[in-house]
Amino acid sequence: MKTAFKVKCVDLSTAGVRVVVLNREDARDLDLKAMDRVELSTDGRQPVTCIVDLTDTFVPPGIVGLFKEAYTRGGLSDRDQVYITPKGKPTSLRYIKEKMAGKPHTEEEINGIIHDLMNEELSDVELTGWISSIYIRGLEKEETIALTKAIVASGTTLDLREKRVFDKHCIGGVAGNRTTMIVVPIIAAAGLTCPKTSSRAITSPAGTADTMEVLAPVNLNKDDIEEVVNKIGACIVWGGAVNLAAADDKLIRIRHPLSLDPRGMLLASIMAKKKAVGATDVIIDIPVGVGAKIKSPDEATILAKQFNALGASLGMNIHSLLTNGDHPIGLAVGPTIEARETLRILNGENVSPELIEKSVQLAGVLLEIGEKAAQGQGREMALNLIRSGKAGEKFRKMIEQQGGDGSIKVESIPIGEYDHTVVAQREGRIEQVNNRGISAVVRNAGAPRDKVAGMYLHVEEGDRVKKGQPLFTVYAKSERKIEQALEAYKQHEPIKFARIILQTLD
Amino acid sequence: MKTAFKVKCVDLSTAGVRVVVLNREDARDLDLKAMDRVELSTDGRQPVTCIVDLTDTFVPPGIVGLFKEAYTRGGLSDRDQVYITPKGKPTSLRYIKEKMAGKPHTEEEINGIIHDLMNEELSDVELTGWISSIYIRGLEKEETIALTKAIVASGTTLDLREKRVFDKHCIGGVAGNRTTMIVVPIIAAAGLTCPKTSSRAITSPAGTADTMEVLAPVNLNKDDIEEVVNKIGACIVWGGAVNLAAADDKLIRIRHPLSLDPRGMLLASIMAKKKAVGATDVIIDIPVGVGAKIKSPDEATILAKQFNALGASLGMNIHSLLTNGDHPIGLAVGPTIEARETLRILNGENVSPELIEKSVQLAGVLLEIGEKAAQGQGREMALNLIRSGKAGEKFRKMIEQQGGDGSIKVESIPIGEYDHTVVAQREGRIEQVNNRGISAVVRNAGAPRDKVAGMYLHVEEGDRVKKGQPLFTVYAKSERKIEQALEAYKQHEPIKFARIILQTLD
Repeated sequence: MKTAFKVKCVDLSTAGVRVVVLNREDARDLDLKAMDRVELSTDGRQPVTCIVDLTDTFVPPGIVGLFKEAYTRGGLSDRDQVYITPKGKPTSLRYIKEKMAGKPHTEEEINGIIHDLMNEELSDVELTGWISSIYIRGLEKEETIALTKAIVASGTTLDLREKRVFDKHCIGGVAGNRTTMIVVPIIAAAGLTCPKTSSRAITSPAGTADTMEVLAPVNLNKDDIEEVVNKIGACIVWGGAVNLAAADDKLIRIRHPLSLDPRGMLLASIMAKKKAVGATDVIIDIPVGVGAKIKSPDEATILAKQFNALGASLGMNIHSLLTNGDHPIGLAVGPTIEARETLRILNGENVSPELIEKSVQLAGVLLEIGEKAAQGQGREMALNLIRSGKAGEKFRKMIEQQGGDGSIKVESIPIGEYDHTVVAQREGRIEQVNNRGISAVVRNAGAPRDKVAGMYLHVEEGDRVKKGQPLFTVYAKSERKIEQALEAYKQHEPIKFARIILQTLD
Repeated sequence: MKTAFKVKCVDLSTAGVRVVVLNREDARDLDLKAMDRVELSTDGRQPVTCIVDLTDTFVPPGIVGLFKEAYTRGGLSDRDQVYITPKGKPTSLRYIKEKMAGKPHTEEEINGIIHDLMNEELSDVELTGWISSIYIRGLEKEETIALTKAIVASGTTLDLREKRVFDKHCIGGVAGNRTTMIVVPIIAAAGLTCPKTSSRAITSPAGTADTMEVLAPVNLNKDDIEEVVNKIGACIVWGGAVNLAAADDKLIRIRHPLSLDPRGMLLASIMAKKKAVGATDVIIDIPVGVGAKIKSPDEATILAKQFNALGASLGMNIHSLLTNGDHPIGLAVGPTIEARETLRILNGENVSPELIEKSVQLAGVLLEIGEKAAQGQGREMALNLIRSGKAGEKFRKMIEQQGGDGSIKVESIPIGEYDHTVVAQREGRIEQVNNRGISAVVRNAGAPRDKVAGMYLHVEEGDRVKKGQPLFTVYAKSERKIEQALEAYKQHEPIKFARIILQTLD
C-alpha cells in the first residue's frame, strides 16, 4: 500500500539509517510503529529504506518529515510529493535473532549483515542487538574469519606494485608511544614496503595521524597512497581518509555506548585493516601492564595466539609481540612535541632513549622477517639505519612525497606559545608516571585539536630528583589552557614519588 | 568541566532519553562521542541528563541543538545560554554489562535499571543491550518477580474498597474475541469486583478499549476508575490513560524493532498490569492454534505454569486456561460492529453463539473462584445472568457511569455508510476462516481508526454453503475503503473452501 505525503525537510543529520517522521495518526493507518521500516519513493527515483519516528505535533497527518540524508539524496524540498510504503524487515534481522538463539553465523549470513549495515538498512537498535549477541555468544574462528573478509570487502583495498607488504599495529593505550614514525622510515630505508595507515587520537592526546599531520598532509586517498608507496616504499597517512575496511567505523560507533568489545570483532577490526592495505607480514605490538589495555601476560598471550591464528587463516604472517606497557615510552607527548621528537631521533640525536630502543627492536623484528637482516641482527641494523642518516633521509622523502616540506627544521616547528614547568616539591625517587594521568593533562592543555599543545617529561620512572628539579613542561596556546592542564595535573597526580613514611602507628 | 553554549531549538520530539546536538568540533574538545551523556544545566534550574548526537553542519561550534523535551522542560528558547558538562555512565549500565556476562540480576539492580529507564537516563541502544541479554540469558524466577514488582512500582496502583478483586487477561491473537465485554458485566452482576483495563488495537482491527469506546468514554484516570468501580463494581477502560505499570510501555517500545519477547519480560509485563489494579484472582486465556500466538498445547502448558507460579509469588491466585485459537470466535469484527454485537448478546439475542459460549465458560470459572457459583455450576449461572437481563443491566450501568448513554439502542449506533457483501462463487464447505486474513481486510476497511469500519461474517468454519450465499459483509465510511478491503480479501483469501480436486495426475 503506497501512500502519498507532502515533504517537510528537517535540517538534521542522523548517523546510520535514514529517518522519516510521521504523525502518529498516519502511522496508525499504515499499521506502522516507531522504528519500523518504510520505503520512501518519488516519481522516477530509486526508492530508499527509512526508519519511522513518530510525532504528535512536529508534522500533521499527510506530511512526512525527512532528515537531511533522505531529502538531499532524493533532491527533495518542502511540499514535494513522496510515497511511503511499509516495508518488511530485512533477512539479516533473522540472522541476528538466530545468533541470539545461539546459532553460529554462516559466511553468507555475515556477508548479509555487513551488506545491510553498509546500505544503512539496519538501525542502531538492531545493530546493538547483533553486537550484544556476539558479545554474549562469542564468535567461532570461522565466523571471525568471515567477518574479517566481509569488513575488508566493505571498503577499498590497496593495489601496490610490491607483493610483499610489511605493516605494524599497536593495540594502544601507552602515551608517547610514537614508534610508528620511527619504525616505518627505518624499514623503508632498508627496502621494505610499508603503506602505514594510522588513526587520529580517540582517548589519547595524539594519534600517529595527528602527529604526522604536523609535518605533512595525511588525508591521502587510495590513488595518492599507491603513488607515494610505489615511489618511496612507504607512507604514514590517516586511515579515515581512505575508505579501507569501511564497515569497521560503523561497528565501532555502535559498540561505543555500551563499551562492547567482543573479542572476535576486535580481532576482525584490526586484521581487516591490515588485509585491506595488502599486508603480508605484520607485527602486532601488545603493551602489557597496569596502565595499558591488557593487564596480564596470560591475557596478552591468548590475544597474541588469536592474532596469529586469524592471520594464518587470512594468508598473513603475523608476529605478536608482548611489550612493557606500564609507563609512557617517550618523553614527548602531544602532536607537535612528538613530531619534533621524532625528527630529532631520526636526525641522530640521543633523545627519548626508551622510544629509540623500542623502535629499533620493533624495526629489527621486521628487518629479520623481511630478510634484510640476519637472525638476531635486526636491532643493530635498525640502529645503524638511524645513525647513518638513511632512515631520516627516507622520512624526509615521505614527508615531501605526501605534500609536506622535507627540509623542515625542528626549531622552525612552532609549539605552544605559553608554557609552564612544574618542579619537584621535595627530594625523592619517581615511583610512577601514569599513562592515563599524563593523557588527561595534555588533553586539558588542548591536544589533539590544538596541535601545538603538549608536554615534555624531564624525568622517567625510577629517577631520583632533587627539590626544585623540573618534572615536566606543559605547552598550550593560551594561559587559560595552561591553567586547565595544571588543574588536571593536581587532580590526576600522574607523577608519583615513592613514599617515605608508609604508615604512622600511634 | 562546564562549558557554555547558546541554544538552538529543534521542534522535534524523541521518545526516551533527551537528545542534544553538538558540533563535532565541540564534541572533540569536550572528549564526547555520539551517544555519550552530558548534563544540561541552566542558571537556577535542575540539570537534566541528555544523550549527545553529532553534526558537522546543523549547529556550528558554540551552539547546542535541543530537542523539544529538553527545551520545553527547561523553558528555553533560541540563543539562551546553557551549560554542558560531560557525564559518566549510570551504574545501571554496569548491571547491564554484568547481565550480558551471565550474572543474574539482584532485585536492587533491577530496581536501578527500571529507575533509570523511568528517568530517561538510558538510551534506546543501551536498553536494547539489556533486553538482548535478557533474551539470551533468560530471567530466573527471582529476577522475574523483582522485575514485575519494579514495573508495578514504576506507575500508579488502584486503591479499591473491595479487597478481593477479579480480573481476566487474554494473551490475544484471535479476531472477534470480544469476551471481556460480556464476561465483566456477568461477573459484576453476580457481585464480583472487576476494574478491567484493556488495550487499544495494536495489530488487530479493534482492541477492547476501541470497542468499548463506541459506547462510553474509556480514557478514565485513577480517580475516575476508583469511583466507577466502588459504585458499580466494574469498569472497562483503556489502560493507556491511567499510568499503571508505566515502565512496561517503554519496554514494549524497545522490544519492538527486533521483536524481542523474552519470556520473563512478557510474564512480568502482564502480571504487573494485573497487580497494579490490585487483582487477587485472575484468569489467563491462552488461545492455542495455527493462527494464534501460541501454536502448540505443550508450549501453552509451560506458559500457563509460569503464569501460575509467578502469580503465587506475587500473592495472586492465577488460573490459566488453554482455549481454542484456530479461528475467529465472534462473527462481528471492528469496533462498532463488535460493540453492537455485544449489546445484542447482553440483550439476550442468540447471535455469535461461539462468542457467547466462550464468554459464559470464562465467566463461569470466575464465578466459581469467587464462590458465587458452586463447583461445576459457573457456566449455567453465567448464562442465566445473561438471560435474566441482569448482565445487560449491569453493562448499561457501567456505560452510564463511565459517561456514556446507558439507554442506547443497537440500531441507533451508526455503522459504515458503505457496505459490500461477498457471496460464494460455488457450492462447498468452508474449511478455514483465517484470523490474520480477516484482520487485514477489516484494517483495510479503515478500522480501528474508523470505528464504523468492520465486517460481519455470515459463515463459520465447517459450514456448507450454496453458490451465491453471502459469506460476509464489509462496512466502511467510503467507497474507496470498501475497494481497499476487497483488494485485501483477494490478496489474503481468509475464507477458504475445502478443495474437491486435490491433484490432477496426467
